[in-house]
Amino acid sequence: MPEPRSDAAMRDAHQAIALTVAYEGSTFAGFARQEGLETVQGRLEEALGTVLGHRVQTVGAGRTDSGVHALGQVVSFETTADLDDLAVFGRSITALAAPDIVVRQARRARPGFSARFDALAREYRYRLSAGGVPPLFLAGLSWWVKRELDLDTMREASRLLVGEHDFRSFCVAESAEGKRTIRRIDAIEISEERPLGERCVVLRVVGNAFLHSMVRVMVGTLVEVGRGRREPSWVCDVLEARNRAAAGQTAPARGLTLWSVAYPDDVWI
Amino acid sequence: MPEPRSDAAMRDAHQAIALTVAYEGSTFAGFARQEGLETVQGRLEEALGTVLGHRVQTVGAGRTDSGVHALGQVVSFETTADLDDLAVFGRSITALAAPDIVVRQARRARPGFSARFDALAREYRYRLSAGGVPPLFLAGLSWWVKRELDLDTMREASRLLVGEHDFRSFCVAESAEGKRTIRRIDAIEISEERPLGERCVVLRVVGNAFLHSMVRVMVGTLVEVGRGRREPSWVCDVLEARNRAAAGQTAPARGLTLWSVAYPDDVWI
Repeated sequence: MPEPRSDAAMRDAHQAIALTVAYEGSTFAGFARQEGLETVQGRLEEALGTVLGHRVQTVGAGRTDSGVHALGQVVSFETTADLDDLAVFGRSITALAAPDIVVRQARRARPGFSARFDALAREYRYRLSAGGVPPLFLAGLSWWVKRELDLDTMREASRLLVGEHDFRSFCVAESAEGKRTIRRIDAIEISEERPLGERCVVLRVVGNAFLHSMVRVMVGTLVEVGRGRREPSWVCDVLEARNRAAAGQTAPARGLTLWSVAYPDDVWI
Repeated sequence: MPEPRSDAAMRDAHQAIALTVAYEGSTFAGFARQEGLETVQGRLEEALGTVLGHRVQTVGAGRTDSGVHALGQVVSFETTADLDDLAVFGRSITALAAPDIVVRQARRARPGFSARFDALAREYRYRLSAGGVPPLFLAGLSWWVKRELDLDTMREASRLLVGEHDFRSFCVAESAEGKRTIRRIDAIEISEERPLGERCVVLRVVGNAFLHSMVRVMVGTLVEVGRGRREPSWVCDVLEARNRAAAGQTAPARGLTLWSVAYPDDVWI
């Protein structure tokens, strides 16, 4: 399907392109480019360089850790190349970055667009497989906690995390040093689903921005409550402590997916 | 969770046990035991022999081909072993057969129970990924057909397959030689789903019994219609031809899952 042509004046200038990208995180040392390591950003920039004929610097909406998946990561870059058909362009990048990276959409954005700084909200989803039966089709996509979880107490605890808080306790200690650790969580929803026929619990977390490992520490903390080891109100103590040691464990990367990123409508051309 | 104890008299006799088993088909040369090949039945019988201390002959409800997955395959066998706790037993078999086979449930059935001959109905599901974007999380679990499919014409065509028919055209030619090829299809449902966030088309096929590759040839035939290469009524010509060459291609194994098997309620103890 050909995209409508933008006007000639724009073609000469730098254009901003945004890719919506899905990846299977298990084969990557995370999103962010690192010399000598297999990363999502490194693989994408290599594919973009091949297709565009010039080096490309990309910006990702979320710097996912090693092993974390994405369904709707957004990656932006600028180019002077003449991209008539963005669907063809997206397929070319997918073919070069395959099989663990798929470009789901390629869009033109207003000049200066940044997938990171223009983002209004990010949604992460975390899958838990509870109970005595290990996940099979979901094995690489969920955390098997081996016991049933009390979702009502987890929901009660999760409500205490919604809103603007200092999430220092929910952040890898070193990365929080001297940094502002106040973030706003808009919603946490906990539901039972059966993707691929396998029962799992899905935690949906929406917020403006996240600290390093924040969702995974939130999940590890809520699982302590769901297992009955802690009362829901313990979450307030964890927040107040402003100390990583007060929270639960960091839930494994394989359960986490960067689900989607929201932008103002007027960024798209 | 301990199972209720059966009475002492039963313990001495042969007991019939039914396992509900899920597996990822891509690593196996199919369900059925074959000397020198990695099969689901072979791996299960090895695990059962280790735990029960005697050789076990199993019967599967469906002989899935190489690469075909199962969510609810049922496997039966007889044993004289004293199995107090079937949940513990199921976990032991899962641990030994891991990671591509998971025992989801272990139940006691009436003496003489056969997972194959006592089955009332079998349900298969086939996943198709349509359109220009390849599947990522569903890559090993669906057939990427690369074009959009017209689901309405596929539904119209599928209705012509429901009921009792001679399905010789939908069966691997050699395996049909001299055999009865009449089967009853109870339902075919075609729906759009988003497991793991990825759009796919799911064909749900329920019937009493199936010929070799029958679901995959049915899917390949319905996809011809969905792509617009054939009219829905073509399916009647295919049925009437009683010739494998008249039907569409055999859809790839990776899209197919043996979803569940139904039994009369009174088989369970």
